[in-house]
Order: sequence, then structure tokens, then C-alpha cells
Amino acid sequence: MSSSVRPASSEFLSRLTAIVGADNAIADPAEQAPYLSEWRDLYMGRTPLIVKPASTEEVSQVLALANAEGVGVVPQGGNTGLVGGQIPRETGNDIVLSLKRMRRIRDIDPAGTSMTVEAGLTLGEVQEAARKAGRLFPLGLASEGSATIGGNLATNAGGHQVLAYGATRSLVYGIEAVLADGSVWDGLRALKKDNTGYDLRDLFIGSEGTLGVITAATLKLFPEPDERTTAFVALPSVDALLPFFQLAERRAGATLTAFEFMCDLIVSFVVRHIPGTRRPLADDAPWFVLIELSGAEGSTSALMERLLGEASQAGLVTDAVVAQSLTQAEALWKIREAASEAQKGEGGSIKHDISVPIARVPELLVKGGEAVQRVCPGARSVPFGHFGDGNVHYNISQPPGMARADYLALWDAMAHAVHDVTVSLGGSISAEHGIGRLKVAELARVKSPVEIELMRRVKTALDPKGILNPGKLLAP
Amino acid sequence: MSSSVRPASSEFLSRLTAIVGADNAIADPAEQAPYLSEWRDLYMGRTPLIVKPASTEEVSQVLALANAEGVGVVPQGGNTGLVGGQIPRETGNDIVLSLKRMRRIRDIDPAGTSMTVEAGLTLGEVQEAARKAGRLFPLGLASEGSATIGGNLATNAGGHQVLAYGATRSLVYGIEAVLADGSVWDGLRALKKDNTGYDLRDLFIGSEGTLGVITAATLKLFPEPDERTTAFVALPSVDALLPFFQLAERRAGATLTAFEFMCDLIVSFVVRHIPGTRRPLADDAPWFVLIELSGAEGSTSALMERLLGEASQAGLVTDAVVAQSLTQAEALWKIREAASEAQKGEGGSIKHDISVPIARVPELLVKGGEAVQRVCPGARSVPFGHFGDGNVHYNISQPPGMARADYLALWDAMAHAVHDVTVSLGGSISAEHGIGRLKVAELARVKSPVEIELMRRVKTALDPKGILNPGKLLAP
Repeated sequence: MSSSVRPASSEFLSRLTAIVGADNAIADPAEQAPYLSEWRDLYMGRTPLIVKPASTEEVSQVLALANAEGVGVVPQGGNTGLVGGQIPRETGNDIVLSLKRMRRIRDIDPAGTSMTVEAGLTLGEVQEAARKAGRLFPLGLASEGSATIGGNLATNAGGHQVLAYGATRSLVYGIEAVLADGSVWDGLRALKKDNTGYDLRDLFIGSEGTLGVITAATLKLFPEPDERTTAFVALPSVDALLPFFQLAERRAGATLTAFEFMCDLIVSFVVRHIPGTRRPLADDAPWFVLIELSGAEGSTSALMERLLGEASQAGLVTDAVVAQSLTQAEALWKIREAASEAQKGEGGSIKHDISVPIARVPELLVKGGEAVQRVCPGARSVPFGHFGDGNVHYNISQPPGMARADYLALWDAMAHAVHDVTVSLGGSISAEHGIGRLKVAELARVKSPVEIELMRRVKTALDPKGILNPGKLLAP
Repeated sequence: MSSSVRPASSEFLSRLTAIVGADNAIADPAEQAPYLSEWRDLYMGRTPLIVKPASTEEVSQVLALANAEGVGVVPQGGNTGLVGGQIPRETGNDIVLSLKRMRRIRDIDPAGTSMTVEAGLTLGEVQEAARKAGRLFPLGLASEGSATIGGNLATNAGGHQVLAYGATRSLVYGIEAVLADGSVWDGLRALKKDNTGYDLRDLFIGSEGTLGVITAATLKLFPEPDERTTAFVALPSVDALLPFFQLAERRAGATLTAFEFMCDLIVSFVVRHIPGTRRPLADDAPWFVLIELSGAEGSTSALMERLLGEASQAGLVTDAVVAQSLTQAEALWKIREAASEAQKGEGGSIKHDISVPIARVPELLVKGGEAVQRVCPGARSVPFGHFGDGNVHYNISQPPGMARADYLALWDAMAHAVHDVTVSLGGSISAEHGIGRLKVAELARVKSPVEIELMRRVKTALDPKGILNPGKLLAP
């Protein structure tokens, strides 16, 4: 598909510049730099021009022109993606379409059930707007200060509230998207139920900018829970994870809003490298869980006490601390949220964002650890993540003393090994980060030919010239 | 698209018969009859052959052959659809593919998180299998004894538990579908999170058999709540509906599992025509709500008492009865569930399945009533439905004494009037029943050309010869 994508002519670049205005078209390499690399330093792209349209109409004009010329377009939000989907290819032929100037809150429903926002607002700004309206937009990510809601939609972002509220897909009533030829699909609706034809909304969400550019969305808002109770819990073994989760689910039902797990070693990394953190419990344990209940006033702390008491009696929990204040709760969350950053202090790390059916997480942890040792003896597996979603960030820090570059050269071999275990357990090689560039080859390796062919047909139907985010998600 | 669809040759019919076996190929008109009409008697189809494959492999062979011949195929489950999607056209050229022999429960996850079932099981059987495994499959419909899970998936069925658990789409991890050319897409996964490419699952769900034939699904199972508390509540005016719902949502959060509303007249119809029913409250009121809370043991009845007390003090509720036993709860539900059937006793009825943003339901009820009177003075609007989903079954019984046929001749004019009000409020002309044949023209009338074109492109990409359920959902 992308074979037809061509380099940009200087006349084309001038016309693009005229659409968005000279101040919003960046050709200078120094100014371009922050848009062309990402925080893991895995990719460094090149582009003749970054354009920053201010409206859906300008996005439409940019795409119509690019489509007519057959030039590739890479949509970009806050540039926080972890798989390189937002970075243009090194060919330097693709233009970058930054949505960061589309920042309007178009509407908040008077009853507080929905809010229509443009793609370039950060997730943090969206959360804040909901809060000011007395409501909750529950999507939450470590990168929420920079990540845009448009990027969250394009990647179907996950985060730590998925257990109770679902991923981004579940938090959206409708979207507005500009198609490859510049036509605008107004799918902005605020309907809980709508069975009028194909589910186009969910086709665009998670398509990583390869089927259309999402310019706005009508988001679901929720009542803010009266209170939250957070606990940090020690477990005696990997085998206690599933029964403890199931007990929590049975007792707490929909008030169970987080069930995050960490191995002991990642907690050690956090305490060692992240200032202001300390171990919440006195003794070591092989596994820890951060559990949160949210609900009506006066309901969650008593429920937490009962749950932990029952779990302790059943031998599923060896120690626990319940936060007595918001500050204490934040300190517990900090340990979980700093896990990825803490790895930087331990040298190179190879990371996987995988999921399996929840009952198979313990098996994944055991078999994954064995596979890692076969690829690199001494490498340190530090799995953590969203147990309640079956989503494991299967990260692996290098053996102490090994050269960083030598370790990172094992990335593909390690990914194969971990993904093979994942697939053998019925799992996914990308639970929440997407495919981008990082996993294009792995996707082609693990998916059935029928599924790849289906995706290709959809891609060709919606973007016949292959101009949208070329080289991402589907192999050319 | 469907212009290329051809009549079936006798050789083709013989080969189809050979695939499924002579006992499972129905050519006799008398035997065919139950498959060719539906319970509202709106459509009476014709077909040369009904085939009943027993396996995905047989479905694959049937479709490969039909695609090669260019013959239309109409998938059918329990034949309970309300928009004619499951009935072949009167041309008599399309074959019917009944999924009712595909009845295996393929797998129940040992941790009880998922269950993989074939398309031909009834929803009631699926619910029962979940119950036997100590879990809950929450989809619930009046027609659950006959409707198949495959039909529920093809139409993204709604029902009365959507408020807490979502429509069918939300209750499915993955599906298996046979494509137009007979290739089989194995999308059966049991993953809460999976961001590996386009959301093909949700493209097939709700596509009413026009993109592929769903043969199996991996369903989400939930913990059965310890208890439910059900109440039947009288409201003083249409303006009390929204604030009462919002109060319930705020106080009960995720334990609010049903919020169904009925106008006074439909309650009268039920009590008059459905044996064994009686008014739950002594006095009349303009509106009634059936409210249900589900949760941990001992939590819901106290919460209901507090909620009703607060609502009463705020003047939102004038009377209420709380069920003291399962039998009493069932009697309250019976009134709601018999609403549609009760209309039969009042002559002809014209029905609409519409939704609007929840804050606009009261406006819909007022403006809808006015529009109805303009089309047919004296017609009796009896709206009821899933208030918490913004989903109104805007049904209208004929004026007393009018000839039934004269009234039903107004169907299109009435539908235009009600749908115009709905669309003006940002609503949908099919909240949960789909498009089928009944609303093909209305869909083309109310959707944007961009959206229709997008759907057409997807249809052509996946079913290039247009053999799948021709004439349904999209106008030829």
C-alpha cells in the first residue's frame, strides 16, 4: 500500500504552509527535533514539514492535499507513544500532522453525562475539565500531563482504571474523524445505545492513525466516587495472586477499581532510585498488590478491612497497610507508577506489554522467567502491571555488569521468546501500547493470515493510496 | 452491491444439501414456514432452501459455494429479530443459513472468567451454563428463551441490564466468524486488553450478518451479585425522571443495575391484558420507574431505603414499593416485560426503538407526543424503556375504534415524525433492534453521506459480491 507514497514537492509544502499559516509549519530541523524522537530513544524520524492545523477544516484541507499528491502523513499528539507510531520514517518523505493546536472544549452536557473535546487537549486537561463540572473522566496514565486525548483515542490507551471503567474505547460515545481524502465523518454522538449500522467508531479507535485522523470526541463522564480506600498488600507466593483477585472481585464487585501487582525486585528498584519513596511494609515478600476500592461514603474502608481479614485467614495475604489519608494513598500509588522509570537506574531494559487470560497470569510469570534466562542468563525479570486486566508489563533489566548495548542487542530474541510464551497461553503481544513500528514484524509473525488480510482490506478500503501513517501497524 | 446476486441453480442446491446432509436442508414450503415469517408479521420471505450446518467447517463450505455462485445468504438464529433482518427477501433467490444446530459449549475457563459457546445456543441456555459454573452472563431479553447468542451478537442486542453491564458488544472477549468467501477468522480470545490492530470484533458485532457469519464467541462472565433489591416507584411528573436517575446514580454508583421507566397508560394496558398482573401501587401517577440495585450481601436494601427516602424528601418520588421476596420482584419485572405484549390487546401499534442523550429523554417524551398527534389525532403514545440508557421504546397504540389497517398504513409517516424529533435531539433511530429491512430507507435518510459511504466501503471490502444478507442494513 505505502509503495505509492511519494516524496513531498516544494510546491506541495508551500500549499500546506498556506493552509495552517507560516507560524504553524515547522521546517527548521532544530525546531523539529522534539517531534522526531521519543522518550525511549528507539526511533529518530525525519520530515520535510510539521504542520499544526487549528481546526477540523484545516486538517481536512491538509489531508485532501496530501492524498491528491500521494504524500504520507504521520498524525501526532503529545509524542508519548511507546511503540514509535507517532514518529515519521527515516526516509524523510512523510509530513507530520500535529494536533496540539486543536484544544477546544466544544461542549459539556448540562446533565454532566458527556463532554466533547478536541484531540489536542492533554488527558490531564480533560480530567480537570471534568472535575470542574463535578464529574469524573476516569482514564488515567503516568503520561497524562503530556499525552493528548487524541493520542489516547488513536491507541486505545489503557492505564490503571481499566478494571472498573474499561480502556479508552469504553469511555467514548462518539468521535469526529477526517478521512484520507479529507472528508469529515461527524460521529459525535452522546448515546449510550446506537445500533444504526457498522461500528465505525471502534474501527478508528486503536487504529493508530492508519485509517483516519481523530479530531474530536464526545467522552463519557461518570459520578466521582465519594471515597477511595487504598491498600498495599504482601502475598506469600505467585499462586496467591489469582485467588486473592477473585476474592476481591466477589466481595467488592464494581467497587474494586484497581488491582495492580508488582514483584519484589521492582519495588526494590523504586525504593533505590526514586527519591522520597520507601517500602510500605516492613518485610519482604515475593509479590505485592496495590488494591483500591471506590464507592459511596463510608462504604469502602469497612469493606477493605473485611476483605483483607478474610484474605489473611485464607493464607492469601501475609501483611497489608491501608492508607489513612490521601497523602498516604498517593505514596502507595507512587511506588507503582514509578516502576518503569526506576528501571533506568539499573541499566538497559527490554520491555513487553502483554496480556493473557487472567487465570494464566501466574503461568506466564513462571514460564516467562524461564524463557528470559534461556535468552540471557542473569537478566532480571521485573514483571508488574494490571493484574485485574491480565496485563503484564513484562520488563527485564540487564544482568549487572553487562554492557548496555550488548544487552539491548538481544531485544528481538527476547521479544520472540516472551511473545512465544504469551501466544502459547492465548495472549496478546500488545495489551495497551499498540503496534506502531516496534511490533510490525511481530504482528505479522503471530497473527493468522486471515486476520492480516482482513486488516489489509479495511486499510485499503479507507485509505486506498496508503498515505495515513505509512509503515505503521501493518507491514507494507 | 447486491445487484450481482443471482438465483440459485438446482445443481448449487444439491451441492449445498450434500454439505449439510439431506435431513438438514429444508426445501418443503410447509417445513420452511416457521423460518420465513416473524412475530410482528411485517415480512414473509421466500427461499429455495434452508440449510442447517452443524459446524464452522460446514458454514465455511456453504459460504464458499454461495460466494462462488453469487447467491445471497441470509443468516438466521432464533428468528426473534424485530426489524426483519433474519427474513429472506420475497424474490425467493436467497438461501437461509440457520445456525440452530451449532450448539456446543466449547469451553468454560476454570477460573470462571470466560466461556466459549457456539452461535446456535439460546441466550437462556447460555445464561444457564454460566449459572451452573457459579457465574453470571448478564445479557437479558424478553425473548431469551428463543433468541440465539449468535443473533444477539449479530444485532448487538441490548436488554434490561445494559445500564450496569453494557450491550452485547461489551460482554464479549472475542468471536469466530466465517467470511463471505468461506475463510474462517478465529478471533476467539479471552483477553481484557488487546491492542494488536483493528477492532475487527466490533465490526462484525452489530453488522446484522452483512459482513460475516458469527459462529462462536468467547463471552465474559461476571460474579453473581449476592443480592438484588427491586422497587417500583411513582413519579410526580416527567421532569422528575432525570433528577431521580441522577440521584440514584450518585448514591448507588455501580450497584444501580436497572432503571426502567413506564408511562401510566402502558401500566394500565398490562394490568388489563396480562393475566396475573396488578398495579403495584394504590394510586395513579404519570410515570413509574422500576429500579434495581445489585451488590454485596446486606448492602442493597438499606441503600434502596436511603435512596427512596432522599428522593421522596426532594419531591422526586410520590410513592414506592420495595419487593420483599424474589416472587414480589418478579411480579414487578413482569409489568415491565409484558409492556410490548400488552399492546396487542389495544389494536394496532406502531413501534420505535430510539435513543437520545439521557438528559434529553424528557424533551423527547413531550415533543414526540406532539408529533404523534399531528400524524394521527387520538393515537395513544405509550413510551417505556431503559431510561438509564436514554433508550425509549416509543410505541403508539391506535386510537380506539379506528380500523387497524388504516392505522398501520400510517407507519411510515409516524416513523418519519418520531425519527425527526429523535434526530433533532441528537438521537438514534435504532437504539438496540438494528436496521434490518424495516429501517433501511430511514437509515439512508438520516445518516450523512460520508457515513453511508464509509459503511459501503467496509461492506465492499469484506463482501465484494454482496452475498451476505442482501438488502439488509444498507440500501442496494
